[in-house]
Amino acid sequence: GPVPGRRFVVVDNGVPAVWRTQLEHYFEQHGMETRILVVEGGESSKRSEVLFDLFAEFEAFGLDRRNEPVLIVGGGALMDVASFAASVYRRGVPLIKIPTTLLGYVDASIGIKTAINFGSRKNLLGSFAPPLLVLLDRTFFRTLPHREIPNGLSEIMKLGIGCDEVLFQQLEDLPPDVIFEDRFQTRGRHVLSRAIEIMINELEPNLFEDDLCRPADLGHTFSQVFEMIPGEDALRHGEAVSFDLNISCVIACRRGLMDHTTLRRAANLTEALGLPTKLPEVDPAALWESVVERTRHRGGQQRVPLPRGIGACVFVNDIAAAEVETALDFLVNRHWH
Amino acid sequence: GPVPGRRFVVVDNGVPAVWRTQLEHYFEQHGMETRILVVEGGESSKRSEVLFDLFAEFEAFGLDRRNEPVLIVGGGALMDVASFAASVYRRGVPLIKIPTTLLGYVDASIGIKTAINFGSRKNLLGSFAPPLLVLLDRTFFRTLPHREIPNGLSEIMKLGIGCDEVLFQQLEDLPPDVIFEDRFQTRGRHVLSRAIEIMINELEPNLFEDDLCRPADLGHTFSQVFEMIPGEDALRHGEAVSFDLNISCVIACRRGLMDHTTLRRAANLTEALGLPTKLPEVDPAALWESVVERTRHRGGQQRVPLPRGIGACVFVNDIAAAEVETALDFLVNRHWH
Repeated sequence: GPVPGRRFVVVDNGVPAVWRTQLEHYFEQHGMETRILVVEGGESSKRSEVLFDLFAEFEAFGLDRRNEPVLIVGGGALMDVASFAASVYRRGVPLIKIPTTLLGYVDASIGIKTAINFGSRKNLLGSFAPPLLVLLDRTFFRTLPHREIPNGLSEIMKLGIGCDEVLFQQLEDLPPDVIFEDRFQTRGRHVLSRAIEIMINELEPNLFEDDLCRPADLGHTFSQVFEMIPGEDALRHGEAVSFDLNISCVIACRRGLMDHTTLRRAANLTEALGLPTKLPEVDPAALWESVVERTRHRGGQQRVPLPRGIGACVFVNDIAAAEVETALDFLVNRHWH
Repeated sequence: GPVPGRRFVVVDNGVPAVWRTQLEHYFEQHGMETRILVVEGGESSKRSEVLFDLFAEFEAFGLDRRNEPVLIVGGGALMDVASFAASVYRRGVPLIKIPTTLLGYVDASIGIKTAINFGSRKNLLGSFAPPLLVLLDRTFFRTLPHREIPNGLSEIMKLGIGCDEVLFQQLEDLPPDVIFEDRFQTRGRHVLSRAIEIMINELEPNLFEDDLCRPADLGHTFSQVFEMIPGEDALRHGEAVSFDLNISCVIACRRGLMDHTTLRRAANLTEALGLPTKLPEVDPAALWESVVERTRHRGGQQRVPLPRGIGACVFVNDIAAAEVETALDFLVNRHWH
């Protein structure tokens, strides 16, 4: 296992200085030599330049292959790129994930996937890299920007819709002040625990995705289109996932997999969690192209997860372009019956 | 498993056109759509630009994640970089290795390691990627440049010295015309079979290098220094390994692990296999720096494999700079007793 001595720590520039200071203090108290490297976080950091900058920094530090685990402190995007770097440097050095965002806490930190984007393709390059350790600390949520709370809750809503009705109900039952003021510091932690439990149950038997029908993929068929819309104020991953979830629910409803009351319930929860409900206008052809891309990624079949009511999902291979366009039109123009 | 349809084939530019034509013909006969991409081979191809060019080509082809295995036809270096590309594209697509050099045949194709170089560091970035299939065909040896024969034999000599005295004797017994004229087409194939068997026995129980004491690492402690000497006519991997083997034998001899007769026997075999016996003048400090680098790569301990006679090796953690310098001096100035 790791021995005391030196640590290389990658810290997201979105993490307030107060936490970095505490980290420095901690290592100092333990007499450890520490290199703290602040790296730009967020989706735009998932690119080759950041990856190769990390390699150069590891090399300048003289990172040992086995005894100096890389600590990654930050949001999901930084965790993706820094874990990728650690997983191929010397064909893999140990890594420890310390998520600071709610999204990182319930999603990126639990899985073993690493990634960078390539061109307009999200997560096209990456690896499977089990971390040595994941440290979950809700204290970080206190200093998160407001928008990061719904951004993380979206992945919990996904798990509720696709895998666990109890979790969905727990989300519905959360008082707004627990979500937006307490931020799970003293209340609501049962929701986080259950989300993580469900997530682990989903991922663990299929860690390397031998089975390409993955309930955790719900909300991740059309989401890339929203996430990759360029601009200063780009949509966050969880926001894009919530748009995808709503599209998936509408398609499910039109296929008789979900009744109108349940569809409305999903839309209401989206709103209650503080997620945007108005879809941006995107080219329906782009959504369809995303299905085609996912088909390549899912081994030649669509395998699109659609909710079956709340708490379960089915996988379909016959999604049609027109169906996607109709669902988009419904949501953009809000044709609620 | 893979289905007929399309194949993406990466071919080393060192492979004569005659083999590429046969490959095209083969796929045409089977009614398969094929993209044959010719890529510069050799050590200089193991860099990020080549890696990212491959990603762009995979993407332009629209490579499926599971059903369109990438075929890699070429030498060890091209196999390293192209396998790395395949292993991280979509977090890994299936790959099939078809080595065309003797070195690729007995070494790179057997293992599951992929790599590119980074700065002056050999194989600093990479992955472990088990291929779907390895196709071994000695026919390719017929068109290899002369120098490629000793280059590959060096890795067999390494296995003989470090792991198997019978293999070493078989190499000693090979008539020169089998090596340099027949090139294992009709004779001498028992040596290749035994080398592969020994190699698999060494690698298989320790595929992911949980144990960092690896007999197959013999000859790979100082070799990087020779291999990374820049210039038009760079030393080949096998040539660098043979220099390292001879240094390791001299150190072993001075430590009483090998007698002088055996040391002479190793030197004689080096010469008989057509490998260079005169070491280039390198800075002894560079050789020592290589030991330091390997120590980082071997988890904080030197773990330098040294031969114990012929057919076995030991791992030592107390190699000293002066010892390396003395061995280098001995070989450069040929102080044979």
